[in-house]
Amino acid sequence: MELAEIILYTQKQRDNYVKRFEEALAIPSISTFPENRQYMLRMAEWLTAQMTAMGLENVSLMPTPNNPIVYGDWMHAPGKPTVLVYGHYDVQPADPLEEWDSPPFSPSVRGDYIYARGASDMKGQIFAQLMAVEALLGQSGQLPINVKYLIEGDEEVGSPPLENFIRTNKELLSCDAVLNCDSMIHGADAPSIVYALRGLAYFELTVSGPAKDVHSGMFGGIIRNPLNVLCEVLAGMHDAEGRITLPGFYDTVRLLSEDEREVLRQGPYSERYFMDLSGSPGLFGESGYSSMERLGARPALDINGIWGGFQGEGAKTVLPARAGAKFSMRLVADQQLDEVVKQLEAYLETAMPKECRYALSVHSLGPGAIMDRKAAPIQAAAKAMKLVFGKEPFFRREGASVPVVGMMQQQLGVDSLMLGFGLPDDGIHGPNERQSLPLLFKGIETYLHFMNILGS
Amino acid sequence: MELAEIILYTQKQRDNYVKRFEEALAIPSISTFPENRQYMLRMAEWLTAQMTAMGLENVSLMPTPNNPIVYGDWMHAPGKPTVLVYGHYDVQPADPLEEWDSPPFSPSVRGDYIYARGASDMKGQIFAQLMAVEALLGQSGQLPINVKYLIEGDEEVGSPPLENFIRTNKELLSCDAVLNCDSMIHGADAPSIVYALRGLAYFELTVSGPAKDVHSGMFGGIIRNPLNVLCEVLAGMHDAEGRITLPGFYDTVRLLSEDEREVLRQGPYSERYFMDLSGSPGLFGESGYSSMERLGARPALDINGIWGGFQGEGAKTVLPARAGAKFSMRLVADQQLDEVVKQLEAYLETAMPKECRYALSVHSLGPGAIMDRKAAPIQAAAKAMKLVFGKEPFFRREGASVPVVGMMQQQLGVDSLMLGFGLPDDGIHGPNERQSLPLLFKGIETYLHFMNILGS
Repeated sequence: MELAEIILYTQKQRDNYVKRFEEALAIPSISTFPENRQYMLRMAEWLTAQMTAMGLENVSLMPTPNNPIVYGDWMHAPGKPTVLVYGHYDVQPADPLEEWDSPPFSPSVRGDYIYARGASDMKGQIFAQLMAVEALLGQSGQLPINVKYLIEGDEEVGSPPLENFIRTNKELLSCDAVLNCDSMIHGADAPSIVYALRGLAYFELTVSGPAKDVHSGMFGGIIRNPLNVLCEVLAGMHDAEGRITLPGFYDTVRLLSEDEREVLRQGPYSERYFMDLSGSPGLFGESGYSSMERLGARPALDINGIWGGFQGEGAKTVLPARAGAKFSMRLVADQQLDEVVKQLEAYLETAMPKECRYALSVHSLGPGAIMDRKAAPIQAAAKAMKLVFGKEPFFRREGASVPVVGMMQQQLGVDSLMLGFGLPDDGIHGPNERQSLPLLFKGIETYLHFMNILGS
Repeated sequence: MELAEIILYTQKQRDNYVKRFEEALAIPSISTFPENRQYMLRMAEWLTAQMTAMGLENVSLMPTPNNPIVYGDWMHAPGKPTVLVYGHYDVQPADPLEEWDSPPFSPSVRGDYIYARGASDMKGQIFAQLMAVEALLGQSGQLPINVKYLIEGDEEVGSPPLENFIRTNKELLSCDAVLNCDSMIHGADAPSIVYALRGLAYFELTVSGPAKDVHSGMFGGIIRNPLNVLCEVLAGMHDAEGRITLPGFYDTVRLLSEDEREVLRQGPYSERYFMDLSGSPGLFGESGYSSMERLGARPALDINGIWGGFQGEGAKTVLPARAGAKFSMRLVADQQLDEVVKQLEAYLETAMPKECRYALSVHSLGPGAIMDRKAAPIQAAAKAMKLVFGKEPFFRREGASVPVVGMMQQQLGVDSLMLGFGLPDDGIHGPNERQSLPLLFKGIETYLHFMNILGS
C-alpha cells in the first residue's frame, strides 16, 4: 500500500485516535506519588496492550527498582536502520488542582485542544509515534525500518533506574539512532528540530562564619559575615560582560561556526519573543552573542536558591552562623563535567576568604549533547516535516538538559533525534496542560514520512 | 554619715539585697507576650513600691499605649547636677525553656552567679542603682545630686512609646545628663565605660525579573536572574579592602584622632578576644583599622537575611521571579541618616541593571551617639570605678546601637553615661542568663561613689 493511502487511512481514524488517546490520559500515572503506583502499572499495561495488538513483538514490562520499563520491537527490515524510540509514560503531579478548568485526568476537548495532565508531556508524543507504526503495520504488514521501544515510568522523578537499565541491556537496546519523542516544536506553523541540548551541573554551597548567629552590632565590620561572603563569591562568578569567571571555563567550549550561526539565525527568535515568554523586563547575557546563541551554544551559571539569616517580617540585627545557596551551570559541547567541577573548586579556593569556612556539594552532573544536523535521521525528520507542514523546519539548540540523550550517547554510542509535536505554551508541568489535536495528527503523518524516508 | 560607713552598711545588706533581687527576678515581665501583661504591671508596681519606700518622690506609673513607664525623682540638692536614670523593667522571652538549668523565673544562686531571665539585662543593673540611692537616702537622709527615673517596659520590643513620651514630657525629664544603666563592663577585673554607640539604618531590597518562576534551562543565560542580580548588587556595596562603596559614604565620618586611637588601644581587645567571642575562624574589616576601631568608630554594612528561589532538599532548576534581602548599616558620628539613605538610593540607581526591577524599603533609622569622655558624669564614673575596682576603667566605643541615647540627645539635648555591671558572657537574650553577684555589689558601691563625686 502506498504511503499516501496510509495517510488517508489515518486521517479517517482521527475520532478513533482521540477516543483512545483519552483512555491513556485518564490514567493518573504520577510517578512522584507512591500511592499512584497502581496507575503506573495500569498505564504501562495500557501501552503493552496497544503495542501487542498493533503487531509489535517481544512486548514486555521490564522490572526496575522503580516503575517498569515498557519494551517492544519489530525487527523485520533487514539491512535497514534500527531506531530506538524513547518516551516516558509517567506525568507530573497536577496540583494546584483548583487552577484547572477541567479535571486533569478527565480529558476534555475544547476547540483544537485536548486538556489533560500529560497530554503534551508526553503521552501525546508517544501516542502519535505509536499510531504511525500501527497504521503502517496494520495497513501494509510491515515497517520500512526496524524499531525498538524504551518507554520508562520515572522521567518526571529524574529517571533513577534508567542509566543502569541501559547499561545492563546494551544488546537488547542496540540501534543506529534514538528517536526521542520527549520534545516539542516552536509553533503550529513553525516546525523545528532540536539538535543540541545543554548539560547540567548543579551544586550547593554553604558558608559558615561565627559559631552561632551573632549580633550585628557586636560584630558588624570585624568578622566575615557568611551572607556577605556568599553574595561576593557568587557574584564573582560573573564579570560585568556576563562571562563566567571560573578559571579555564571557556577553554573547551566549542565555538560556533559562521555556518551554524547562520542556521541559528533562521529561527523566529526575536528579543521580543524571549521577553514575552519570560515576562522579564529585558534580556541580558554574555556579550557578543544573540539570545538564541546564548541559550543553546553558550554555557550559563545561575543561582537557583539562596537562604540565610532572618527572613521573617520586620528587622533582626543578626549575622548568621551559616548561609547557603544552590546554583547550577548549563554546559555545552565540549565541556567535560569533571573539568567543570575542578574549575569551580579552583575558583572557590581563590575566591573564598580565609576568615570563614565553606562546603561544596554536587547535586547532579549530566552531560550535554550535540547531534550532527547532516545525519540521516535528522535529515529524514526535516524532509518529513517539510512534506507535512509545507515548510522547512528550522534547527535550534535547546537550553535545557535531557539527560537520557547523553546517556544514550555514552552507553549505546548513538545520537538522538529529538522530535515532538507539543508547543511551548502547552502548559506542561502547570495547570491546564493541553495538546493541539491538529498537531497530534501532523505528528502521526510526520512519523509516517520519517520512517518511510529513513528506510528508503 | 561618711560614705565609707554607708558602703559598710551596704556590704552587711548583701543577703537582704539578694532576697529582694530574687523577688524582682521571679516576675516574668516579658513584654513580647500580650498574655504577660499582668506581670508587666506587677513588675512596675514592685518598682514603685521600692522607690516609694526608699524615699523617692512623685513615684508614679505613667501610662503609654504599651506598658506604663515608671517615674520618680528626688530633687533636693539645689545647685547640684540632675541625673536622669534610664532603665527598663521588661525582659526577653525565655525560650528555649529546655536549655535552662533552672527555671528562668525561679532565681537560682549557684557559685558567684544568680541565674534568671533579666538578671543581667537589666533588672540587676537598675536594682544596683536603686540600692545605692536607698542606702544614701536611708542612712544619710539625702543625696549628693538630684535624680529622676525613667524606667520603661518596652525596651525589648523596640520601645515604641518612648520617643513620644520623652517629647511630651521634656520638662518633667529635663536634666544635666542621663545615666543609662542598660550597659555592661568588659570583665570582672576589667571595668570599662562606653562613650559612643553606632547608629542603625535597616533596609529591605527586593529584585524582580521574570513574570513568574521560570525554568533555568529555558532562560538561563538570556535574562537577568533576580538572584544573580541581588548577589551582585549586595556584593558591590563593598570593595576588596572592606570599604563600603556607596557614593560619599565616608565623607562625613568623623576621623579618629591619634589621641582617641591611643585611648581605644588601652582596652584588652586582642584579635583572639573577638575570635573567641564570635567563634569566627578569622577577623576581617575595613583596611587600616583595628577591630576595636572598626567596631566602634567605623561604619559597617551587613546583610542580615536573604531569600529567593528553591530552598528545599535536592535540586530545582528555577530562576525565581523575585528575590530579596534585609541588610543594615551601623553608622558613626557624623553620618546623617537621611544622607545615608540618599547614598544608598544613588548606588542602587547606578548598580541595578535595567533588565530587572527593584524596590527598597526602610525598616528603621536610628542615630548613633558619641559622648565627651571629659564630661563630668563620665569622669565621675571613671573615678568611682577606680575606687571600687582598684584600677582605671578603659574607654570603649560600642558597635551596637542604643536608640534611647540618640533620643535623649535629640529630645532633651543631653548626653548619656552608659554604666552597667553585667558581663559579655552573661547570656543575655539566651538560656541560663546570669548576673555575677560580686559585680552587682561592686555596682552598688560604684553608684555610691559616682553620686558622691558628681555632687562634690
